[in-house]
Amino acid sequence: MIAVKSMAAFEHGGNVYEAIDPAAGFNQWLDFSANINPLGLSAAVKKSIEDNIDKLVHYPDPKGSELKRAISQYYGVPEEEIVLGNGASELFYVYMHAIGAKNVKIPVPSFSEYERSANALEGNISYFYLNSEDGFTLDVSELAKSLNGIDTVMIGNPNNPTGNLLKRETVEALVKSAEKTGTNVVVDESFLDFREDRELYTVMDLVSQHDNLIVMNSLTKFYALPGLRLGFAVMKSSLREKMEKNKDPWNVNLLAQKAGTTALKDAEYQSRTREAVGREAPKMAKALKSIEGLKVCEPAVNFVMFNIKGRGITANELTARMKAKGILIRDCSNYPGLDEYYVRVAVRSAEENKILLKKLEEALNG
Amino acid sequence: MIAVKSMAAFEHGGNVYEAIDPAAGFNQWLDFSANINPLGLSAAVKKSIEDNIDKLVHYPDPKGSELKRAISQYYGVPEEEIVLGNGASELFYVYMHAIGAKNVKIPVPSFSEYERSANALEGNISYFYLNSEDGFTLDVSELAKSLNGIDTVMIGNPNNPTGNLLKRETVEALVKSAEKTGTNVVVDESFLDFREDRELYTVMDLVSQHDNLIVMNSLTKFYALPGLRLGFAVMKSSLREKMEKNKDPWNVNLLAQKAGTTALKDAEYQSRTREAVGREAPKMAKALKSIEGLKVCEPAVNFVMFNIKGRGITANELTARMKAKGILIRDCSNYPGLDEYYVRVAVRSAEENKILLKKLEEALNG
Repeated sequence: MIAVKSMAAFEHGGNVYEAIDPAAGFNQWLDFSANINPLGLSAAVKKSIEDNIDKLVHYPDPKGSELKRAISQYYGVPEEEIVLGNGASELFYVYMHAIGAKNVKIPVPSFSEYERSANALEGNISYFYLNSEDGFTLDVSELAKSLNGIDTVMIGNPNNPTGNLLKRETVEALVKSAEKTGTNVVVDESFLDFREDRELYTVMDLVSQHDNLIVMNSLTKFYALPGLRLGFAVMKSSLREKMEKNKDPWNVNLLAQKAGTTALKDAEYQSRTREAVGREAPKMAKALKSIEGLKVCEPAVNFVMFNIKGRGITANELTARMKAKGILIRDCSNYPGLDEYYVRVAVRSAEENKILLKKLEEALNG
Repeated sequence: MIAVKSMAAFEHGGNVYEAIDPAAGFNQWLDFSANINPLGLSAAVKKSIEDNIDKLVHYPDPKGSELKRAISQYYGVPEEEIVLGNGASELFYVYMHAIGAKNVKIPVPSFSEYERSANALEGNISYFYLNSEDGFTLDVSELAKSLNGIDTVMIGNPNNPTGNLLKRETVEALVKSAEKTGTNVVVDESFLDFREDRELYTVMDLVSQHDNLIVMNSLTKFYALPGLRLGFAVMKSSLREKMEKNKDPWNVNLLAQKAGTTALKDAEYQSRTREAVGREAPKMAKALKSIEGLKVCEPAVNFVMFNIKGRGITANELTARMKAKGILIRDCSNYPGLDEYYVRVAVRSAEENKILLKKLEEALNG
């Protein structure tokens, strides 16, 4: 199937730039539409940014040596396999350009930048539909049967917006099957850092064993730095060289390099985040399930998707009602593979989550 | 001619990340190898960065509305013709990917990212050699005769590293000739803001009249922000849409958007910069000319290229000797179209320029 989509189909959450009506009764958006660490900037990261403002008169290190060393140490991958990105999203485009992607398969629903980046090259994009009946679980053996002639399959683990999580063994099985059809498997692990038991799911360390495995990661969600842009990819060095060739040498700004290096060493913030999300996400899911007529997908990390069809209201309408109350949530109806009744909310602090739940009940009641 | 170049050929100036030998007698590099505004960060820009650190928990505005408005107002171009970049360099790559460049012509010597970006697509790159005998002036009517089958010709105005400057009429004549062969003309005006008489040279406002004209500009050189990354391009909207499609929507980080918006309104810093560079660049050129055996290219903006063959020493050797004294200068011997005797220095403050000149004389004398 060839997807022909307008750019409007690629609208994202997290756009806090819309003006607020002065009569609205609030002066800033409470943003549950972007999945950012509820703890906000770590004090150490904030300090590293402040301390390096005067260094902005210099170019960023084109090799990113200090940051690559920190990534290598934290994630246990060789520096030679790392490509730094101006956010993980940039790296999707760099990847598509580097391999000249022609036939890309995407299990959907999933993060729309997978499709938008593949769309840059005007190749064929085909969907593999996940099924709401079995909680949007990806059947990798079914997917593997459909990879003939496919350059690249892109998956999120955990998947956004569904929250579905795949075991390490399951992803590796897909990578091995895909090897036979000459298909690259791009695994986006941008939310995996939120989990204590990351090692049960990550395949980052398997890159050295599989030429066709590429792992992407964002550092902006977990470290609450989306405004600064920072991500990285891990892959075999032959592809890494092609990636480097398809981007400019200074793509990661100096403050992002400094912030990332500091963040990866901030063990206290890391464990506090995992503890908070590990506590608040199940609480949020439980509270949502207790609301009549909602069907809630089990969250894996810091966001929850749910269906509101049982309340006879569309996601578009609910999102508008929440917006009128100063709260941004993610209308998921522009995701291929979802109908018009899905919304996604981020997990924030206990106090903010309470506000969300209260306003949500009001909005559902009209 | 097809250029086959290793990545080592694309080494740049401004790399201050090399470790300093503790025994060297200095603790930081004095960097004359990158052409950055000698005044450093403006106070207003620095404040806008500091004031927005807490906003980094939000994504950057994907539309860049505030910054585009500021660019539109300052440069007098319509917002719909602007594409924002993570530095001008990113936009060279986005452009090459957007048009699928196959045959690119580059007058040389010039900024090596023109070639490196064209090289990303592995097309044919051909050089149009500028001649040292006539001060590396670009003969646009000769160039126009060689554009059959060429997608794109890329020029810098002023050109880096030579400092050569083309009048507005001359560039427009090239654009008109190139129209006949279906060739796009990309004009990089990244250093033009340094001149009081910019309007004699810029063709940015002519974009609306010529479908095949694309103007690139960096805001990092003039506003001393290379570490933060910020640039923009101006072009007809059909191409603009292709460009947007070939990059991720958050490519310009939030601090760069804020800093750029502030910088473009900082008239005092702008005039102080032009005054300083207008005074120091000719002084530097005059002082260099007074040194025996140097052939100096007339500077147009904040850098000067000169030839040292008359001193029987290569650029590589001189650069090494200067480095041993704590000063980085740009060895230009990896520029196609230059022999091994050219170096380039930035124009910095009166005091720093004196240090450069003193150390240079010492280094030339062995």
